[in-house]
Amino acid sequence: MKSGILKNKIIEIFKKFGVNKAHATISANALINAELVGAYGHGLARLKMYCDRISKKVINPRPKIKIKKISSSISHIDANNSIGFVAADIGIKTAIKHAQKTGIGMVAVKNSGHYGLSGYYAEQAVKKNLITMIYTNAPPAVAPHGALKSLFGTNPICFGTPTGSKIPFILDTSISMINRGKIRVAARKNLKIPKGVALDKYGNPTTDAKKALEGVQLPIAGFRGSGLAWMVDILSGVLTGGNHGGKVKDPFDDFSGPQNIGHLFITFKANLFQKNYNQRIKENIKTIKKLPKIKGVKEIMYPGQNKYKRFKENSKRDINISEIIKKDLEILNS
Amino acid sequence: MKSGILKNKIIEIFKKFGVNKAHATISANALINAELVGAYGHGLARLKMYCDRISKKVINPRPKIKIKKISSSISHIDANNSIGFVAADIGIKTAIKHAQKTGIGMVAVKNSGHYGLSGYYAEQAVKKNLITMIYTNAPPAVAPHGALKSLFGTNPICFGTPTGSKIPFILDTSISMINRGKIRVAARKNLKIPKGVALDKYGNPTTDAKKALEGVQLPIAGFRGSGLAWMVDILSGVLTGGNHGGKVKDPFDDFSGPQNIGHLFITFKANLFQKNYNQRIKENIKTIKKLPKIKGVKEIMYPGQNKYKRFKENSKRDINISEIIKKDLEILNS
Repeated sequence: MKSGILKNKIIEIFKKFGVNKAHATISANALINAELVGAYGHGLARLKMYCDRISKKVINPRPKIKIKKISSSISHIDANNSIGFVAADIGIKTAIKHAQKTGIGMVAVKNSGHYGLSGYYAEQAVKKNLITMIYTNAPPAVAPHGALKSLFGTNPICFGTPTGSKIPFILDTSISMINRGKIRVAARKNLKIPKGVALDKYGNPTTDAKKALEGVQLPIAGFRGSGLAWMVDILSGVLTGGNHGGKVKDPFDDFSGPQNIGHLFITFKANLFQKNYNQRIKENIKTIKKLPKIKGVKEIMYPGQNKYKRFKENSKRDINISEIIKKDLEILNS
Repeated sequence: MKSGILKNKIIEIFKKFGVNKAHATISANALINAELVGAYGHGLARLKMYCDRISKKVINPRPKIKIKKISSSISHIDANNSIGFVAADIGIKTAIKHAQKTGIGMVAVKNSGHYGLSGYYAEQAVKKNLITMIYTNAPPAVAPHGALKSLFGTNPICFGTPTGSKIPFILDTSISMINRGKIRVAARKNLKIPKGVALDKYGNPTTDAKKALEGVQLPIAGFRGSGLAWMVDILSGVLTGGNHGGKVKDPFDDFSGPQNIGHLFITFKANLFQKNYNQRIKENIKTIKKLPKIKGVKEIMYPGQNKYKRFKENSKRDINISEIIKKDLEILNS
């Protein structure tokens, strides 16, 4: 399907569920972007979930979002259980304004929900020549180091910077060995997941995606990854007023209340300390790309480069709609 | 040796090398702290290196450190090739002042050197009820993902927060599988290093510490760890005006010029958004500690907890001085 047509379809669906046109457009753009960058676990596979949560009154389609300005650099947003895309859009835009005015911006968001890809918001800041760091927490999926039970989300760490070229440097890495979205897609398609990335609910290694969803995802690098996940839970949950300590509800399975996810957006001018920042980072990337390569590696890629390539390629093509998604769209349109 | 006596010895040595008393004391305190927390790779094992670098005029014992205030929240420090401890001490103290005044502080440092443990500076901010994030780069030790040659340093990521108790949460994790300091200590003591943490200079796995020092350390989690290391190189080097892209010199082996390491200190008030932050984080930690544990695990520890325990225990005892260090002290005192 052409992405423009699909976008309008999604907007109409969200409007049917009571979301206003502006918020529906923000949400549709984020979902389409996920498809175009190949992050299918954050794309159309989630559309029905968002609508279900609106129906069950655990996402507020008409939120009264409050922005509390704490200083000329700092704001606190209460998203009033809006769909996460809308809260994050306001969050990053507020953080960008702060950084443009004072050099640095920090925006904490509470009472939000799953917002898709952190990198999508990072790109907005990077386009304004800002560096950005973004944190959000997620439902329990990863066991803290030493624990037998999941508690941390896949809690992504996101860092973006201009590169002096049109392809931004966007590191957007979850601290689990595999993204939960990828396991979800594999479960829907009855595909196996790699070895060593998850345990089943009894603590045994598994390559069965469905069993992995019931079990525990493993953090990267043992106590180091566990510590990074804990940091993200603190920055996005404890600090902001969002849920934390394993209290973020699974958006697909738990309709007993809103998620109350928290986000933290930090932004600052890339040329705060060095006027020729863009020149400096160009040299940095050039130096690293020139290193001798491992056999079979054609080019050393910086984070975000592959995603940009996929986006460019996919933008030329129609978006592939699986049978499952087709059915979702029919149900939601009916 | 009693830590007080050792401290005076170190101060006298630094003074002999032209460092003023205040700077010598800051440096001695940092070295002793590293010994007390059990981070021996950052302790006495480095004393002779610092003095050698002063003798060879690649550390400036009498630096004229310039602090340029960019805004009420942001400063840029040119450390004039001071010993790293002094630059970092001024850096964190400036960042603390900014955060206390405006809620958030950011301080970039250039023309500095190796400063020991990031966590040591994080503790200073946490004691003032601030959250802090600290980045610094280091000489090439880790190969970027896809490359056959080291370029990134072990580039630690440091995050600290108050916990509402006397033991701070200090995550201070290098992005390599093993700290370079630990390999250095193993090499000096002729001990083996674990499997899977390093390659020799030909790209083969090795457990020989000396061969690992000539070779490549492996990043945590493949491209994820490589991306985090790259982020740290950008934040501490490209952004600040410090060296980057593999240009930081090895302090032990390369006396051809100053290191020009960069540091970045970010600080903000823990209770910016939630007045009861300390209560919230207490609950967070309590929840995680209550999780069912893996067999053999007595307690789920948060980052910094073990280090604090070692500090308390070691503070009651004399500091153990190895034969190699004894010789160093004799040479430096003669």
